[in-house]
Amino acid sequence: MLKPPEHQVAGHRAQDGQLGPLVDGCGIFYKPLQGDGRGDAEVAFYTSFFSHPAVPPHILSFFPGFHGTLVLPASDASGPRPHLALDDLLAGLRSPSLIDLKIGGRTWPPDCPEDYFQKCIVKDRESTSVALGFRVSGVQIQDPAGADAFWRPSRAAVKRYMVEDVRRVLRQFVSANPPSPDQKPDCALASAVYGGPDGVLAQLMELKAWFEEQTLFHFYSASVLLVYEKDAAVAAAGQQPVKSSGVRVKLVDFAHVMEGQGVIDHNFLGGLCSLIKFMSDVLNDPEAGALESIKV
Amino acid sequence: MLKPPEHQVAGHRAQDGQLGPLVDGCGIFYKPLQGDGRGDAEVAFYTSFFSHPAVPPHILSFFPGFHGTLVLPASDASGPRPHLALDDLLAGLRSPSLIDLKIGGRTWPPDCPEDYFQKCIVKDRESTSVALGFRVSGVQIQDPAGADAFWRPSRAAVKRYMVEDVRRVLRQFVSANPPSPDQKPDCALASAVYGGPDGVLAQLMELKAWFEEQTLFHFYSASVLLVYEKDAAVAAAGQQPVKSSGVRVKLVDFAHVMEGQGVIDHNFLGGLCSLIKFMSDVLNDPEAGALESIKV
Repeated sequence: MLKPPEHQVAGHRAQDGQLGPLVDGCGIFYKPLQGDGRGDAEVAFYTSFFSHPAVPPHILSFFPGFHGTLVLPASDASGPRPHLALDDLLAGLRSPSLIDLKIGGRTWPPDCPEDYFQKCIVKDRESTSVALGFRVSGVQIQDPAGADAFWRPSRAAVKRYMVEDVRRVLRQFVSANPPSPDQKPDCALASAVYGGPDGVLAQLMELKAWFEEQTLFHFYSASVLLVYEKDAAVAAAGQQPVKSSGVRVKLVDFAHVMEGQGVIDHNFLGGLCSLIKFMSDVLNDPEAGALESIKV
Repeated sequence: MLKPPEHQVAGHRAQDGQLGPLVDGCGIFYKPLQGDGRGDAEVAFYTSFFSHPAVPPHILSFFPGFHGTLVLPASDASGPRPHLALDDLLAGLRSPSLIDLKIGGRTWPPDCPEDYFQKCIVKDRESTSVALGFRVSGVQIQDPAGADAFWRPSRAAVKRYMVEDVRRVLRQFVSANPPSPDQKPDCALASAVYGGPDGVLAQLMELKAWFEEQTLFHFYSASVLLVYEKDAAVAAAGQQPVKSSGVRVKLVDFAHVMEGQGVIDHNFLGGLCSLIKFMSDVLNDPEAGALESIKV
């Protein structure tokens, strides 16, 4: 039985008769192909990427598995439509905390049409993309109140995030206490989620090493998606040394991937390095953090 | 006796009654303060940078030594004018080969005025800045014909450099044969200049390590200047292992440096990584390189 995913923080949503992705509950995520060429571009990327002999196996695992395309009834009741069949990155998780980070100070490729450039540059300058090299596209954090309770700032609020909001949400993301205007995020889960041999930082460093070398693809407007379950992280945080908390680090959204033509993706790499520095700061100084309230 | 520098490949020139820098022949380079605030900004940067307790000593050496400001008769005969007194980076060199590389896919800071943004973004898109994360601002290469003979493409030609031109000029820069439409750059001096423990790559890797951490300054529109003398490089290239060829790697032009505010300079870092990859490619595959002629 296909239905809209329960936990979706960015992108179009399949609700209220809108076009959006569907999941089958058995591990597959169906993303409708957008008709303006973006859908075809994304199919072309997945096909090329997973068959490329120069992509090392440990890098493939950062990408959702690709299972071809499938014509399915669209979620907006507009009839049959081709969908990308991808791994459901949240499969098996009951209460995932997740954050979607769009990487790159620039979301437009070098040779894009003028109207696309104009649209992107405004968003890049109004968001933290230009200043930070990345921006938050969406976030949900399991609330201590219960497994089915989540803190989920509105999209409008996330759009208004400035540098300090991003800093704070990256701390809140690994905290056990709920977001509050009166309390600093406690960063109690920082070592369990960001740290450790399988944590977010270690995985991002692997990605970084690849981006320092690879000249195959340039990723514009793609995201790093970070996912973990608080229960597992709390259990891991109680252990010495910290065991794996089952954190998932994935790249998503490839409608604007270009050929690298022998040049590294300096735009994505720079943003990735900036994100890595933010997370290192949380790990190295979990006590820090401003007291200003977070936009909700 | 103050006079215009002999070897200047970028920036305003003190010739034909124009305003430009002067050298005293004793190791000091005098750069006139521009009146539009850029001059003051550059003085403020040098003052802050060289007195900053968090800048490590090995990083200071990548910057021209700063000796304060001095009022001197301007080269355009407009009368006395304050000048920055800096180390002359070419002091002691008779026939320097040099290349000026403006680093960053973006030359405008986040909060710049709209007209400055518009001016910069056009240049960034028309040059290789957007595609490569850096662009060539100027180059001169000593010609095999003699110590005082140089190959120096016109500024208009350098402005038209596309990705393949940049790739080729970075190969030509470390070649013993002269630029020619019929011959590939031989890259005979690649290991002596780009390689080795004191070569360009090793020095750029040191800079990169600092840029991965430092959140003090963001460098917009600054350049990496690479300088070496062919005689020394040829001598070094004949040795096994390759000895130092006295290559100089310096950062220059700080009229658009901003405070980092706790964020790394992802824009400069990305461009630096891109440059590093280009140079690694020259070192790893000196036989490669297209045959197309270089724009002169």
